[in-house]
Amino acid sequence: MNKQLTIDLNCDMGESFGAWTMGNDEAILPYVSAVNIACGFHAGDPSTMMKTIQLALKYNVKIGAHPGFKDLVGFGRREIQTTAREVYELVVYQIGALAACAKVQQTTLRHVKPHGALYNMAARKPELADAIAAAIYAIDPNLILYGLSGSELINAGRNKGLKVYSEVFADRTYQQDGTLTARSDKNALIHDPEQAAEQVLCMIRTGKVTSLQGNVVDIQADTICLHGDSPEAVQFAKTINQTLKNHDILIR
Amino acid sequence: MNKQLTIDLNCDMGESFGAWTMGNDEAILPYVSAVNIACGFHAGDPSTMMKTIQLALKYNVKIGAHPGFKDLVGFGRREIQTTAREVYELVVYQIGALAACAKVQQTTLRHVKPHGALYNMAARKPELADAIAAAIYAIDPNLILYGLSGSELINAGRNKGLKVYSEVFADRTYQQDGTLTARSDKNALIHDPEQAAEQVLCMIRTGKVTSLQGNVVDIQADTICLHGDSPEAVQFAKTINQTLKNHDILIR
Amino acid sequence: MNKQLTIDLNCDMGESFGAWTMGNDEAILPYVSAVNIACGFHAGDPSTMMKTIQLALKYNVKIGAHPGFKDLVGFGRREIQTTAREVYELVVYQIGALAACAKVQQTTLRHVKPHGALYNMAARKPELADAIAAAIYAIDPNLILYGLSGSELINAGRNKGLKVYSEVFADRTYQQDGTLTARSDKNALIHDPEQAAEQVLCMIRTGKVTSLQGNVVDIQADTICLHGDSPEAVQFAKTINQTLKNHDILIR
Amino acid sequence: MNKQLTIDLNCDMGESFGAWTMGNDEAILPYVSAVNIACGFHAGDPSTMMKTIQLALKYNVKIGAHPGFKDLVGFGRREIQTTAREVYELVVYQIGALAACAKVQQTTLRHVKPHGALYNMAARKPELADAIAAAIYAIDPNLILYGLSGSELINAGRNKGLKVYSEVFADRTYQQDGTLTARSDKNALIHDPEQAAEQVLCMIRTGKVTSLQGNVVDIQADTICLHGDSPEAVQFAKTINQTLKNHDILIR
Repeated sequence: MNKQLTIDLNCDMGESFGAWTMGNDEAILPYVSAVNIACGFHAGDPSTMMKTIQLALKYNVKIGAHPGFKDLVGFGRREIQTTAREVYELVVYQIGALAACAKVQQTTLRHVKPHGALYNMAARKPELADAIAAAIYAIDPNLILYGLSGSELINAGRNKGLKVYSEVFADRTYQQDGTLTARSDKNALIHDPEQAAEQVLCMIRTGKVTSLQGNVVDIQADTICLHGDSPEAVQFAKTINQTLKNHDILIR
Repeated sequence: MNKQLTIDLNCDMGESFGAWTMGNDEAILPYVSAVNIACGFHAGDPSTMMKTIQLALKYNVKIGAHPGFKDLVGFGRREIQTTAREVYELVVYQIGALAACAKVQQTTLRHVKPHGALYNMAARKPELADAIAAAIYAIDPNLILYGLSGSELINAGRNKGLKVYSEVFADRTYQQDGTLTARSDKNALIHDPEQAAEQVLCMIRTGKVTSLQGNVVDIQADTICLHGDSPEAVQFAKTINQTLKNHDILIR
Repeated sequence: MNKQLTIDLNCDMGESFGAWTMGNDEAILPYVSAVNIACGFHAGDPSTMMKTIQLALKYNVKIGAHPGFKDLVGFGRREIQTTAREVYELVVYQIGALAACAKVQQTTLRHVKPHGALYNMAARKPELADAIAAAIYAIDPNLILYGLSGSELINAGRNKGLKVYSEVFADRTYQQDGTLTARSDKNALIHDPEQAAEQVLCMIRTGKVTSLQGNVVDIQADTICLHGDSPEAVQFAKTINQTLKNHDILIR
Repeated sequence: MNKQLTIDLNCDMGESFGAWTMGNDEAILPYVSAVNIACGFHAGDPSTMMKTIQLALKYNVKIGAHPGFKDLVGFGRREIQTTAREVYELVVYQIGALAACAKVQQTTLRHVKPHGALYNMAARKPELADAIAAAIYAIDPNLILYGLSGSELINAGRNKGLKVYSEVFADRTYQQDGTLTARSDKNALIHDPEQAAEQVLCMIRTGKVTSLQGNVVDIQADTICLHGDSPEAVQFAKTINQTLKNHDILIR
């Protein structure tokens, strides 16, 4: 009987663009098991995509596509009025572009995680969630869909027959209904790596998280999102990685 | 013994962008055997790419990628200082994006033809030509490379082991050394569809073309480029298509 | 005592981009008194802007800026989550760019009309409307602000001390509360030029419009929006222009 | 009799874009007398432009436009095949956009310095240099044109009647004909701040520079270009600023 607890640690990468650098990709890579690579619409360019895949291969982590809205100046974080058809098409395009960058380096994509505003809109709008799930399925039904735990995107993936990973956040606080505290709230972020690691550990071991209001809510945690673009990102990644290992949780 | 002459007729398509329409794709499609679809860098967007593939399937013509420089405002026609590495990467990216659009419509790409300034630079710069050939080969060694007849791009494709199609032009005049007359020359273009059809017929049947200077030069003609964005494009396509059929040349 | 009725007829122009043409600017120009020129974010480019100003000068019509969201592929028609600060900045930038194109042709801007989604969002969101009014005022307090009749944008302009022009539409139907019928409604558009001209005439002479529901609602009409990108645009413009002249209304 | 030597120290600024940061603008500002602000084509966006002007005002340095090619991914460093007309138009557009950002902050532009590939092409191609000079003159004949010392751009500015500033580089070595050593040469850059300061001092006081080959060549130095995007940039700026002050040269 196998009682080994396992978890996936993912981080967004390849978010540089042309002459502009973002994030500290190589410093984070030793601590994660999967990376989501920007595909040129909200960040990334063909050269950055190629190099990021090369780096991921070097550290032996799983590679996924991180498609977003075509909004460079807004970094894909601004919600854009869009149709399900457009979302289907931009997801197909971006996965295809990254998949080719992977293929010429003799590797393949293993998952897809929408970025920023697309992720957030797909979490609550079933028709956009369905479009994303359909796009992924049509390209490769073996791709895993990453989405916010408890979201419409996770539902859409399951309905389509995709393997899904419910994502939780190490450095974000939760509300009593299990949703994330809005970033506009001053208590939205957890700034202490130890506290973040504790939250993660609890979610993995018990399937529950303590909300900002103090009640305990159910949460499915298949993958933990680590951020790579803040100054403290490396320390967070290292602390969480180490805490999980110390508690005999397998990161993979 | 099979003495059937055959030829491929290709046309650039999917060059609309967002709310802007270019070309008269559906009117040209009945007369060609292959289309080269813009991939979003110099023209095209995910939605246009999807629709153009759908149209191509309806008319049962072959589908190819038409990658270009990332230069929307210049329509990929301006030469941009670039490295072989960058060219490799932008070709991989664009083929991948279009291939995914094809895959979700249960079809596949059959060829690649670089666009505009990229086509012209690859015709004379071996290192860029090699980069394009290498990109295509790495994605799928069965893809056919279309390049200017007699160009470095054709050489690069052959050296890499790709099947190549030497491209000639129905509506352009040739120089005594077999190169195209520069567009800046007032005699660069053939405006009469009948004359264009005659030139094409001659190139296919004899492997020769009469230059503007009056001498006869050898030319390899595997595919004829038809243009889709001029007002007379449809008439040209129709006349050439009919002339070839009248002379028992198989368009495929 | 001057009882001469006057009206301004405006049309969006300069919406071509690079190699892509949109609209039939020169055919519409004889029938309007003012044009709103795209500034490069949702349409237009420096070359198109320069040429459009030149055309406007040729036909002696007033020149205004038509700033929009930075969304080429969506033609500025998609609502984008944005802050009032961002709106202020993008309006300043775009007016400045067009003003320079005017200055080097020895002319000046006379008005500003936001485009598409920016126009619509500013019609109902006071903070965005205020940002636009503040941007215009800071650049030149003599610029006239065009906005939807009865909208927050008109209010914001008045509050700021700008001269405002309340815009009405010749080819759109109105609801009983004086708002435009949504484009998703099959009765949103008036397809008959005569009927459109009648609606315009009524709005100018009586300050009222008959809604789709049949009641009569008050409406302020300082300027009529004509569209330039539909096939029937020229006929519409011509009919409305002629009808107004026939009824001794001065177009200026 | 006034024998006070004076010099202008300039630095490119506002080269961030959206979520991407570049340079260390505020750390450099205390040491320079003029900044060249990117205008949104190769770098910069309306928000960054506004903030950079605000910073420049805080440090009381002169503000100039830094127009470049529309090539975000290449940061305006790649030469693009272009016509003089296009160059004229893109310079007009970009100066206008920045001028508006200045105007709404109650300040004005004082100079223009083309960026990257545009600067280099204008240094050697008279028709592009003339286009830039004409654009600047048409917008405001009082704007100072910054160009490479001894270049066609300086000639064009003088011919047009503009005030010109001949630019020299603190951290670049010179060839025996007075041109810059190509960046591809391993001796192209001066890495020691003291040596850079010495070169600058010599150019200002004697109008001469010692080439890499050891001979002494004449050079006109009206403004020194400091770079802001390298890690050592601040130290360079500080050392050069201090050395000049120590030698009683007025920075203004």
